[in-house]
Amino acid sequence: MKAAIMGYGTIGSGVAETLRVNHDVIAKRVGEPIELKKVLDLREFKGDPIEPLIVHDYKDIVNDPEIRIVVETMGGVEPAYTFVKAMLEAGKNVTTSNKALVADKGAELIRIAREHDVNFMFEASVGGGIPIIRCIESCLTGDVIEYIAGIVNGTTNYMMTDMAEKGADFDAVLKEAQAKGFAEKDPTADIEGYDATRKIAILTSLVAGQQVDYNDIPTEGITHISVADMKYARKIGRKIKLLATSREVGNTYSCRVAPFLVAPESPLYNVDGVFNAVFLHGNILGDGMFYGSGAGKLPTASAVVGDIVRMAKHLNKNIPIEWGEEKLELADPGLDRYRFFVRTTDDQSAIDTAFTEEVEYIDADIVPGEVGFITPEMEQREFDESVKKLPGTVSTIRLA
Amino acid sequence: MKAAIMGYGTIGSGVAETLRVNHDVIAKRVGEPIELKKVLDLREFKGDPIEPLIVHDYKDIVNDPEIRIVVETMGGVEPAYTFVKAMLEAGKNVTTSNKALVADKGAELIRIAREHDVNFMFEASVGGGIPIIRCIESCLTGDVIEYIAGIVNGTTNYMMTDMAEKGADFDAVLKEAQAKGFAEKDPTADIEGYDATRKIAILTSLVAGQQVDYNDIPTEGITHISVADMKYARKIGRKIKLLATSREVGNTYSCRVAPFLVAPESPLYNVDGVFNAVFLHGNILGDGMFYGSGAGKLPTASAVVGDIVRMAKHLNKNIPIEWGEEKLELADPGLDRYRFFVRTTDDQSAIDTAFTEEVEYIDADIVPGEVGFITPEMEQREFDESVKKLPGTVSTIRLA
Repeated sequence: MKAAIMGYGTIGSGVAETLRVNHDVIAKRVGEPIELKKVLDLREFKGDPIEPLIVHDYKDIVNDPEIRIVVETMGGVEPAYTFVKAMLEAGKNVTTSNKALVADKGAELIRIAREHDVNFMFEASVGGGIPIIRCIESCLTGDVIEYIAGIVNGTTNYMMTDMAEKGADFDAVLKEAQAKGFAEKDPTADIEGYDATRKIAILTSLVAGQQVDYNDIPTEGITHISVADMKYARKIGRKIKLLATSREVGNTYSCRVAPFLVAPESPLYNVDGVFNAVFLHGNILGDGMFYGSGAGKLPTASAVVGDIVRMAKHLNKNIPIEWGEEKLELADPGLDRYRFFVRTTDDQSAIDTAFTEEVEYIDADIVPGEVGFITPEMEQREFDESVKKLPGTVSTIRLA
Repeated sequence: MKAAIMGYGTIGSGVAETLRVNHDVIAKRVGEPIELKKVLDLREFKGDPIEPLIVHDYKDIVNDPEIRIVVETMGGVEPAYTFVKAMLEAGKNVTTSNKALVADKGAELIRIAREHDVNFMFEASVGGGIPIIRCIESCLTGDVIEYIAGIVNGTTNYMMTDMAEKGADFDAVLKEAQAKGFAEKDPTADIEGYDATRKIAILTSLVAGQQVDYNDIPTEGITHISVADMKYARKIGRKIKLLATSREVGNTYSCRVAPFLVAPESPLYNVDGVFNAVFLHGNILGDGMFYGSGAGKLPTASAVVGDIVRMAKHLNKNIPIEWGEEKLELADPGLDRYRFFVRTTDDQSAIDTAFTEEVEYIDADIVPGEVGFITPEMEQREFDESVKKLPGTVSTIRLA
């Protein structure tokens, strides 16, 4: 059984390493060894053991009939999309770790795979080593998934944990995360929540069976979270986590990516550092949570190689995935209901006027001249109207 | 697509309810509706909507060519084994929630299913609604699983949580658990650890690919855990949990079921009440944990129906499961290494004589006339020898 890797970066080299280190156990599970035959990369890798396998033109893989399984670990939509499409059309099975590609083109690539009796798999695109895609697509198929809340971005979870534990401010923590390799040089996609948005779009597409456009998902990053917010969180016994959420509403879902104040009763409360976790609620299952290393070379490679083994066992047999190309119209996020934490320099009479129902004041002198309070549960749009009447508002964070 | 249920008790009726409540979404996923055609039970269920489906002879199902999928929710090895075997040999797919059957006959039934191009699935046999079987068998297939530690018995976890929170003693907590329906009238299989032993035997068989005999697994229940043990646990910041563990040693595994003092750093620490969780460590994945409702009518039905959907999509195609009939010789549990917590009425000089390395005394006056201490990490057999020299030993619990 011959395989190829497109993109020999961190993940791609992790996949090659896994195929080497676990060669025998993988061969036993598949029924024959999996041999890496070609590696597509722009670089030469002179002197590296991988050098003899390097090719620079993806057509060298497309046109190699021996290669039945292709791993895409390049990242980005193009040229990954062109390459993956060509591989599927050539009758090759493809697995990818590329959430941008899956969020954008997942439904189409699933259809092309089905039309060619091969498989397009993407376990590594969400939650790194956590097998959340398979759990949704192949295990929890007796359930209607009513709620998903995921900590699906390791960079921001590391930063939130660090801010909470050290009392350091956002910029200092970001610099340290970059120095340690936990944040990229350009951290925008992580800290603005764009990465998490693509991941919850993928999960929601799978549970709904239709295409979710991530551009429709209200997204708020963590850049505005301050040391004072962290102090308030600790005071009320909660932790601030960037959550990617999806909730069933009628025949559709309402999605959101934003920082939330997570209660200690939630299993997500203890998910710290670079770990990821996806909490979900099924109408039959009840609560479940899947926890693990959400990123990094080897955890992600673990998911990719799990796909390789599954595809090797189903070489010419498409395993149907319910994710059609029809667009899912998401529910109005203004109708989402939350309790909200608010910090403001407005006085109590202004607050009482802004909110018809009584709010709960936090008894803590964290920032001189401001108060912190928590609203009763209310609709997002109603909250937005109320908070407009408080010009002194410093920050607002939803509770979860 | 016609299905039958054998055993219309708690789980069986939960499966029927799930097929009814989620009828449309299941039909969409399978491609056609799944209709319950027959239900095997000794009882008549007069007046119940299920009454017209009731049959009393399993051969009525064996000989019905329309029925392609059979659910076994009777429990116990016999007659479940005879019935399931007959169904597989008649070319029907079978899913079961019956851990006794799977632990005893799993490898054989998997072989029979393969020989007849059908499937034998058992997701509900371990961890109730948590899809841990599929995760091991179909997701983490790129990994060598090096360690498993599961809270796989809801009854004992509920009791341990209750003892820790209320300071109540074992007998009082057991009575309350029975009154609430969380413990059976005869709770032996749960509180003596036998249930957990079968479950870790199943998980270890799957990761090793060979048959583990649960009789080989050293098993200790929770009946000896006292209020004083709970106080010591709290003092050292740990919780006592009944863990079912499996660790790779050379070419095999060492398994054990026993109460452990779990550290707050472990993701298992926060798994309280009737919830189950399975923590595992893969050589590529790193750490992962799967958490959810481990028992009960609907969570277990969720897992059974997930199997039904998967089997319906693979009606005449056996999905290979690596679990051969060859017996796995487990490693010597005497070589397991742990730190141990010990309570004794012996004095310090006796303790210093018994243990060559220095122990860590717990500074707490919990029971007059006794001391509590924690040993350094040592082999089980070495500990057993040392503790023989302390005739005043009241209790010992391993740390995890």
